[in-house]
Amino acid sequence: MALIDKLVVCGVGLIGGSFALALRKKKKVRHVVGIGRTRESLERARALGVIDEIALDWAQALDGADFVLLAMPVGQTDAIMEAMAPHLREPTIVTDAGSTKRDVMASAYHRLDAHLPRVVPAHPIAGTEKSGIEAAVATLFQGKRTVLTPLPENDPAVVERVRQVWQACGSSVVDMTAQDHDRVFAAVSHLPHLLAFGLVHELAGRANAELLFSHAASGFRDFTRIAASHPEMWRDICLANRQALLGELDQYLGELALIRSLLLSGNGSRLEQLFEEARQARTKWAQERGG
Amino acid sequence: MALIDKLVVCGVGLIGGSFALALRKKKKVRHVVGIGRTRESLERARALGVIDEIALDWAQALDGADFVLLAMPVGQTDAIMEAMAPHLREPTIVTDAGSTKRDVMASAYHRLDAHLPRVVPAHPIAGTEKSGIEAAVATLFQGKRTVLTPLPENDPAVVERVRQVWQACGSSVVDMTAQDHDRVFAAVSHLPHLLAFGLVHELAGRANAELLFSHAASGFRDFTRIAASHPEMWRDICLANRQALLGELDQYLGELALIRSLLLSGNGSRLEQLFEEARQARTKWAQERGG
Repeated sequence: MALIDKLVVCGVGLIGGSFALALRKKKKVRHVVGIGRTRESLERARALGVIDEIALDWAQALDGADFVLLAMPVGQTDAIMEAMAPHLREPTIVTDAGSTKRDVMASAYHRLDAHLPRVVPAHPIAGTEKSGIEAAVATLFQGKRTVLTPLPENDPAVVERVRQVWQACGSSVVDMTAQDHDRVFAAVSHLPHLLAFGLVHELAGRANAELLFSHAASGFRDFTRIAASHPEMWRDICLANRQALLGELDQYLGELALIRSLLLSGNGSRLEQLFEEARQARTKWAQERGG
Repeated sequence: MALIDKLVVCGVGLIGGSFALALRKKKKVRHVVGIGRTRESLERARALGVIDEIALDWAQALDGADFVLLAMPVGQTDAIMEAMAPHLREPTIVTDAGSTKRDVMASAYHRLDAHLPRVVPAHPIAGTEKSGIEAAVATLFQGKRTVLTPLPENDPAVVERVRQVWQACGSSVVDMTAQDHDRVFAAVSHLPHLLAFGLVHELAGRANAELLFSHAASGFRDFTRIAASHPEMWRDICLANRQALLGELDQYLGELALIRSLLLSGNGSRLEQLFEEARQARTKWAQERGG
């Protein structure tokens, strides 16, 4: 992969910072410019050696840039693309790291209409419940997968270049449509986050919350790990993928209604069968995934 | 702690096997007898050095025993106590490892009425999604907590002895009433298991299950780890703690109805606030727990 001479990262937190660190470690980037809402976190990113320069505006950031990663919460995508548009010039390539893709695609059509050959939406399936630049690590994408949702207008050579950059970060890359992406991740990521947030929120509001939490053990720990995720990021994901997420939530509520009826009627054999089917599917998934 | 001369473990799986291994490692037991439904798993436990002897019936098992651990799924407690009763003699002490305590208490009153001073219900808050003797390890209870739910009829010296045995396994020991125990664990353990089983079961039943699972990542992995738990064990827990669990499920369904309405109306600020409250509670819990 050719060297990125000037990389711009918008939103230098867990994902944006890890992207810069990964490319630096592989010596795939010469100069990293950070841009974002919070001066203080950009200063920390510079002090930590994640970025070389803080851009005060998009004119400065995009001047001579060959690659841009958008890694702020997805709710900001539209405004950021609008701000970028007047300063974006060929051959600068834009990708992103948003957890939803239909909204990013819509903003690209709306705000970056003149640049569509070089705007390739992406979603690295990596992250932790931690957030912020202090959590960034060069290995975050190692062995993970990045989903590209290329636009029909994309230049194939640019898509290939974006693929190589994500691969250079250590991830494998697969392509999907934005629609498929948003439906799949509503089911396997967005809904579980919502359910974990909900459980912790519900327990935390009780009079005996301290007692309850004092007895919570490793099952609770793992089930609720993602309830410590970034609230603004997840607000944006939920709003951006609202329709698919509501569909998933309703299917899940149907499942809980079934479980509730089995509990209510004391139907042990059907409960056990349901648990057994879940166990088999979960065990098979873990085996195929390699642990 | 005085040595256990003859320990009887009923149900030599993850919990029962780990209990025997922990006491062996501390040289707190001389002879371990296993008893259970499945001859084959008892043979494996003997081959692995977890038990010394396989008892064919309770007469053999209880002859000269000074300590009995019941570690089979809780649905068997009543029948096992009935089978034990004719052969139980002073000073044999009985404890158990069931995840529910009101049902164990009820069976003790029903079946072991003549032995109540020496029957001390317990619940070690330890385990993994794995089950069976192959998963047993001497360190399973290390740094974990065991809840005792002593009966009013218990001999205080026997309660103390049971406490020492669980401590010898490496766990700290706290006392609760069986009622409090069952309410607390319905909320922080039984409900999360039900929710995780439900999510995996619901996804596994779909036409595109393979596609969905192929994109599931670390959030899904941790959220659903407990969906690989032992189906029969969890059937028994759900049935034994049905009332408390239904109450918890209904409170959770109320929370999901709130979240659904926030999603439906696109109320980002209240969604974010809910996520923030959950994050704070989850982070505080992890910090107090030490990671």
